[in-house]
Amino acid sequence: MTCRSISILGATGSIGASTLDLIRRQREQWRVVALTANGNAADLARLAREFGAELAVVADESALPALREALADSGIEAAGGADALVAAASLEADITVAAIVGCAGLAPTMAAIEQGRTVALANKEALVSAGDVMTAAVARHGTTLLPVDSEHNAIFQCLAGNDPAHVRSITLTASGGPFRDWSVQQLAAATPAQAVKHPNWDMGAKISVDSATMFNKGLELIEAHHLFPVGLDKLRIVVHPQSVVHSMVEYRDGSTLAQLGPSDMRVPIASCLAWPQRMDTPCDPLDLAALGELTFRAPDEDRFPATRLCRQAAEAGGAAPAVLNAANEIAVAAFLAGHLPFTRIAVMVEETLGCYAPGAPVSLGDVIAIDAEARSAARRLMELA
Amino acid sequence: MTCRSISILGATGSIGASTLDLIRRQREQWRVVALTANGNAADLARLAREFGAELAVVADESALPALREALADSGIEAAGGADALVAAASLEADITVAAIVGCAGLAPTMAAIEQGRTVALANKEALVSAGDVMTAAVARHGTTLLPVDSEHNAIFQCLAGNDPAHVRSITLTASGGPFRDWSVQQLAAATPAQAVKHPNWDMGAKISVDSATMFNKGLELIEAHHLFPVGLDKLRIVVHPQSVVHSMVEYRDGSTLAQLGPSDMRVPIASCLAWPQRMDTPCDPLDLAALGELTFRAPDEDRFPATRLCRQAAEAGGAAPAVLNAANEIAVAAFLAGHLPFTRIAVMVEETLGCYAPGAPVSLGDVIAIDAEARSAARRLMELA
Repeated sequence: MTCRSISILGATGSIGASTLDLIRRQREQWRVVALTANGNAADLARLAREFGAELAVVADESALPALREALADSGIEAAGGADALVAAASLEADITVAAIVGCAGLAPTMAAIEQGRTVALANKEALVSAGDVMTAAVARHGTTLLPVDSEHNAIFQCLAGNDPAHVRSITLTASGGPFRDWSVQQLAAATPAQAVKHPNWDMGAKISVDSATMFNKGLELIEAHHLFPVGLDKLRIVVHPQSVVHSMVEYRDGSTLAQLGPSDMRVPIASCLAWPQRMDTPCDPLDLAALGELTFRAPDEDRFPATRLCRQAAEAGGAAPAVLNAANEIAVAAFLAGHLPFTRIAVMVEETLGCYAPGAPVSLGDVIAIDAEARSAARRLMELA
Repeated sequence: MTCRSISILGATGSIGASTLDLIRRQREQWRVVALTANGNAADLARLAREFGAELAVVADESALPALREALADSGIEAAGGADALVAAASLEADITVAAIVGCAGLAPTMAAIEQGRTVALANKEALVSAGDVMTAAVARHGTTLLPVDSEHNAIFQCLAGNDPAHVRSITLTASGGPFRDWSVQQLAAATPAQAVKHPNWDMGAKISVDSATMFNKGLELIEAHHLFPVGLDKLRIVVHPQSVVHSMVEYRDGSTLAQLGPSDMRVPIASCLAWPQRMDTPCDPLDLAALGELTFRAPDEDRFPATRLCRQAAEAGGAAPAVLNAANEIAVAAFLAGHLPFTRIAVMVEETLGCYAPGAPVSLGDVIAIDAEARSAARRLMELA
């Protein structure tokens, strides 16, 4: 195998760590171009040294002095700030892993796409907000967009070699999150500590809360709508508590293809890194006899209205998904800070959508402006609430 | 879509009926070349008239006068006997469905393969017995061999677009048959009527008994060994009573692809007829939430030794699978006729393998001779028993 070059946007996060774990196992096959982090200069410098990165970038410029110090005499270039992040994403790399959480990843992800090479996309918010703006850039630059999210990666695998015209439906599986069986009363009193304890996946705080509200699944529905344009009416969600089946594609002949695997992000990441080949991961083989059973049930949109809101935003199109996503990020931050009850997250999102309805974005600048304005609108609503 | 030509060997059986049901739904897209049956002249003539077949053949020559009479003035050619069957299989057709049950299908299936076009193989015994002789013919004639068996069709779909070198394991699912939860004592007293009542599939008597003994799964293991040469050590069996997951392929990265669908042979047959495209079937969409749960358990080779015997025969290679298959056909016939207890089927097969061990076949003639000799050996053993 020839050596391939890689950049990781969001190297100190959970996806970054899993990606680097895989690279570490076949170190000689990869050249690490750029690694970026938000503000964790110490971890970033350590990783940059370990992997011999050419460039390390902190998004938070105030962390740049610490990064410079930690990289002194290493020969690794250090940079900081939003423009440096975009510059890092623009560096030529065979594959760029776009794993910055939330809308902060929007501009660097777009810069990576504009390289016209391969982008492994783990930042679902970027695709949700930028939507058509991003998919148009993918088409214009001939970029290969590989989905890292376990559900979308599953769908991508299940579509391989098939014509999307033959798809009858695509079903995203949802664990249902830690509050799957909670009553509305229990949900109203849910704490941040309870919400970030996901039953199956070890994830960051924001995505864990999204999993608890089912906004994660709703955002994934919007993401799937852009990645696999078969029509919203063909996109389904089923609750599958064991998270073994990661998603499914049903074809017109009645064949359903499903991808199954452990709850380990190294599996979909490996699928992206090696695509269209496969690479080893240290994950245990699937043992269905030991698991015994896989269960499925319909989602309950009364207790978890997020998937309904997301579907409506996707149907409305234009700016609605960007507004929904921005409002959700603000509401989740408020919940994590103890300023908003759990069940108010969806309410705040719905109210933000009701009071701020701009026209469809046509450029990245539009998306960023809508995102900022939606955040302000959400904050105003929450101060009033 | 341009019109395609098709021949169906075994048109009056269960696979033949399902195939013709699909053809009936897109009648204008197909030209039916040849239809064959064993001895059911009336049904064959009716189908040949309905589908405007060019040729109708009964394997049993004594049924030819009845076929001739039923086809009088139809313009459809009638023929009978083993040679006519091979001649029918040799007629040029874009796709030939090889669905004759048991070793009677061996010569016609080989004739269809020698056309060098596409063969949809539903006759697992032919591949089990002829093994390397058949796969060598497939390679020599550049034939596309599409598996109709729901399990192998599932595996075929799960391998699409993937390099077999990346396969970690292939898992065949088994319903476990009607006696899945029976004790050894109950099994010893099982009647033919009980054995042919399959919980999930509506099938012929021979294959239903094979499902009850698990010989069906064992023969499928041998079949998979020839169709997907990843190595016997990578072939697994898991009991899955609901028969929703038809089989699975696990890759080196920890991704498992599975094909799911209804217990309706029209799904895998449609997959073969339309391959590499897809066609509509009248099957209901999969509703996992309504199904609720899928369960899995390890097979019990103490109560059901057939899969162990089949794996051993595949490992031994050469003539062993042909001997095993022939002995099983004789033992099943004896069981259905009330002359052999259910639990003696596997015993007779094992004993036949023990007393008749010819060299590896190198031609179809060898396979047919081994098959005949193994049947005689099995019959002798049963008369002694």
